[in-house]
Amino acid sequence: MTTMLRSYVQGRWVEGQGTLATLVNPATEEPLARTGTGGIDFAAALGHARGGAPALREMTFAQRGEVLRAWSKALHAHRDELIGLAIANGGNTRGDAKFDVDGAIATIAHYADLGAQLGSVRALRDGDAVQLGRTARYAGIHLWVPRDGVAVHINAFNFPAWGTAEKAAASLLAGMPIISKPATSTALVASRLAELGIETGALPPGSFTFLAGGPGDLLDRLGPQDVVAFTGSSQTAAKLREQLARRGARLNVEADSLNAAVLGPDVTPDSATWDLFVADVVRDIIQKAGQKCTAVRRIFAGPQLDAVQEALVERLSAVKVGDPARSEIGMGPLSTADQLRDVRAGIGKLAREAETLIGGDKSVETKGYFVAPTLLLARDPAAAAAVHRDEVFGPVATLCAVPGDSAQAAAQLAAGLVQRGGGGLVCSVYSDDRDFLRAFVLAVAPYHGRIYLGSEKVAGQTMGPGTVLPQLVHGGPGHAGGGEELGGLRGLQLYSQRVALQGDRALLDSIAPAPEKQ
Amino acid sequence: MTTMLRSYVQGRWVEGQGTLATLVNPATEEPLARTGTGGIDFAAALGHARGGAPALREMTFAQRGEVLRAWSKALHAHRDELIGLAIANGGNTRGDAKFDVDGAIATIAHYADLGAQLGSVRALRDGDAVQLGRTARYAGIHLWVPRDGVAVHINAFNFPAWGTAEKAAASLLAGMPIISKPATSTALVASRLAELGIETGALPPGSFTFLAGGPGDLLDRLGPQDVVAFTGSSQTAAKLREQLARRGARLNVEADSLNAAVLGPDVTPDSATWDLFVADVVRDIIQKAGQKCTAVRRIFAGPQLDAVQEALVERLSAVKVGDPARSEIGMGPLSTADQLRDVRAGIGKLAREAETLIGGDKSVETKGYFVAPTLLLARDPAAAAAVHRDEVFGPVATLCAVPGDSAQAAAQLAAGLVQRGGGGLVCSVYSDDRDFLRAFVLAVAPYHGRIYLGSEKVAGQTMGPGTVLPQLVHGGPGHAGGGEELGGLRGLQLYSQRVALQGDRALLDSIAPAPEKQ
Repeated sequence: MTTMLRSYVQGRWVEGQGTLATLVNPATEEPLARTGTGGIDFAAALGHARGGAPALREMTFAQRGEVLRAWSKALHAHRDELIGLAIANGGNTRGDAKFDVDGAIATIAHYADLGAQLGSVRALRDGDAVQLGRTARYAGIHLWVPRDGVAVHINAFNFPAWGTAEKAAASLLAGMPIISKPATSTALVASRLAELGIETGALPPGSFTFLAGGPGDLLDRLGPQDVVAFTGSSQTAAKLREQLARRGARLNVEADSLNAAVLGPDVTPDSATWDLFVADVVRDIIQKAGQKCTAVRRIFAGPQLDAVQEALVERLSAVKVGDPARSEIGMGPLSTADQLRDVRAGIGKLAREAETLIGGDKSVETKGYFVAPTLLLARDPAAAAAVHRDEVFGPVATLCAVPGDSAQAAAQLAAGLVQRGGGGLVCSVYSDDRDFLRAFVLAVAPYHGRIYLGSEKVAGQTMGPGTVLPQLVHGGPGHAGGGEELGGLRGLQLYSQRVALQGDRALLDSIAPAPEKQ
Repeated sequence: MTTMLRSYVQGRWVEGQGTLATLVNPATEEPLARTGTGGIDFAAALGHARGGAPALREMTFAQRGEVLRAWSKALHAHRDELIGLAIANGGNTRGDAKFDVDGAIATIAHYADLGAQLGSVRALRDGDAVQLGRTARYAGIHLWVPRDGVAVHINAFNFPAWGTAEKAAASLLAGMPIISKPATSTALVASRLAELGIETGALPPGSFTFLAGGPGDLLDRLGPQDVVAFTGSSQTAAKLREQLARRGARLNVEADSLNAAVLGPDVTPDSATWDLFVADVVRDIIQKAGQKCTAVRRIFAGPQLDAVQEALVERLSAVKVGDPARSEIGMGPLSTADQLRDVRAGIGKLAREAETLIGGDKSVETKGYFVAPTLLLARDPAAAAAVHRDEVFGPVATLCAVPGDSAQAAAQLAAGLVQRGGGGLVCSVYSDDRDFLRAFVLAVAPYHGRIYLGSEKVAGQTMGPGTVLPQLVHGGPGHAGGGEELGGLRGLQLYSQRVALQGDRALLDSIAPAPEKQ
């Protein structure tokens, strides 16, 4: 018995017509739901969404925050149901499912808080007023104002709850209506998340459209005031860049990332920093079966290479792989048959230039999309190519040897290898040596959106580099797509135009009052 | 007798080989100089520029500011020489030439001041630190760090001094080496400006390369850490977008803009606001023969349409057009034969949907690239197409009738027509009616990079909407290219990567100290 997913278009829930896709349980391959967007009038859907813009813009930040608060509360009230759907449709363990669902709730709640803090204003001030004339009367201010279009959100299969939520929270708080499109294969969670938001009754008419399937000709109807926020592969991103450049729409891309974890030469086993490193790396390999854009793909170690190898192999060997509906299971399957094919092929490529320490490209079960946690070893990572280029989107990482006698030399060598990834979302570095950290962090900073410093003093209170926090920007240059989301109020900039206003200071303050608190 | 311009490549001045372009005086068509970049090894030039990055990054903001200060002082010491070159090669009146040259000096000096204010730090903090863990020890900060590449500056013919300077000032202060390429036709001023900078000896080796002609295969050699800042036509911008998307380089575009000036329905003749409006509009039509990306192209007026028409025609009729080397001349020629051809064709297009009030598409002289100040009238601007679409890059504007009885109706109608420009650099509005201003400004804000409010209280101290100030952002969405430059420290963002650092607060502060003053 399968559910029929629906799209929310022009303020109505509708079922797709014609060819439908089937959503399955990736652990059992059992069909769960069907969906499609055939028969939807995308021009009318877009028109309805555009009609929602004035109402959203008229709301204060506090009012937009209340919309988010209602949604966040509704999700919290249905947390167990959402977790159940994520386990069934996403191949998530209960822990994986919580990570996605709780991340969604926390991110929406964070933006609800920001709305409340901004209070009764409608446009965000950027910096202080500056005097432009002989007297303070002639001044300039900068504002972030909502773009006069719609925000199309194209989300990836791996985070149907969090991905939908983080894009929606920033858009709605910025004042842009949303057309949200989840990846079809795991749309069961996103669909329920959308339903719960709509059922609150708090979303103004037109402000939220949900497409439970393909976007039809929607993207060819966009214009310069519209925004597309895309999370997915570099290949799809390249096509979108071309298509949207012709339309003049703004595009934010979050794509492939060869995230690195670097162990400083000062860190030895049985230290708090070492334990943090091992725990973070193992979590990032197996959590969500490695299907996180922020998961570690490359691990760099110097003098402690052998000890790192031993510790990781020991931990990964102990991970039980299987149907995540069973509580003793530590890692579930990949989310789709396509992912299984791609990951097996990717492991095969890596294995041609690195030695397989554990796991490999074999299927683990006869049913379901399983691979084993896989660790490879590149003794000469400078000579490797695929290791630094191909994101294998599963529980797969390559341990890379970094020589280097001094802290400075180690920092330089490690930074050079990390840079070979061509730009990433996050880089983690574990050390208590300030000289090493300073040299390494500043060298890799232009290549990343976020750098996580694991050290003794924070060992007890971090959630690891793989956790995207709403307070910090998420995105990365180059290979990672060049985009930027979240980062608190920075996340609103994607959906806003920065505009300078110059004139009589009193007039400026009357047109765009400064927030009560910002 | 003509000068031979040289390029500054790999730390040496070199003459181009092979085919050369000839620079002329656009008032007399007399040849002034020849230039070309044939024979230059662009791969080696790029390599040398990349080699300049570490030295620039190692400098503190204060030190980078000192480099700019030296350049600004050198330009000031040679101000009369630069003005003379601009009059000869740009068709500039003395006033036009000062606008360009003084703008260059002031902008570099402004960024020198910002460097001094930032002091001894090397990376810019973005916002305050945020607490991420149970204790304040675990924190996150955001930094703007210089991208690890080169900044290629492609400048337009109309502002050889200011355009070169404003891009260079922001790049150098951000810490990125520059390859600067002026428009060939007016490169005499840019070339001298570059020489004066290099002669200071303050620019670190590799930090500044100057190409006195075409960029060869340079752009096909760029990568994801590089930046191209382009000012020019939408057509060239479209090609660059495609070319650079393949290379992954960041592109900033400042292109066509149908800038509007809007007279509020409350403003009547013989008021200070009226006088400001007339003076600003006339200046923006004739200054630099209308060859400013910020010049007014569309003028909107309601009840006072007839009085506006009368005032503008009277003022424009009095403008003396001719060789700007003569002091009585109020407006010089267009800068090139191509510009003359394009502007005449553009006026022809406008004249098919608007009535010509003064001027027209006829050449004014037998020698030189002259057109007359041209004002057209669109009685039904909603029915016009070219008026809102085609930037005629000369002393040409169209007066548009805006009906609307109430302030709200007038604001809505005017905003709708202004938005038809598809996104612009600057919009000016003249009114002392807060309700009209609030409704109009917020409606057009998403479509602009800057909005200038002309009112009684600031009438004595503004320089008009056509003047780009280093304190305020310059750029615009949609048709205007979607880019952003200047805006004080905001101008450094184009040349920087924003990166979040999370970890032990003391480590973060040691790696990236907060500026003394920011």
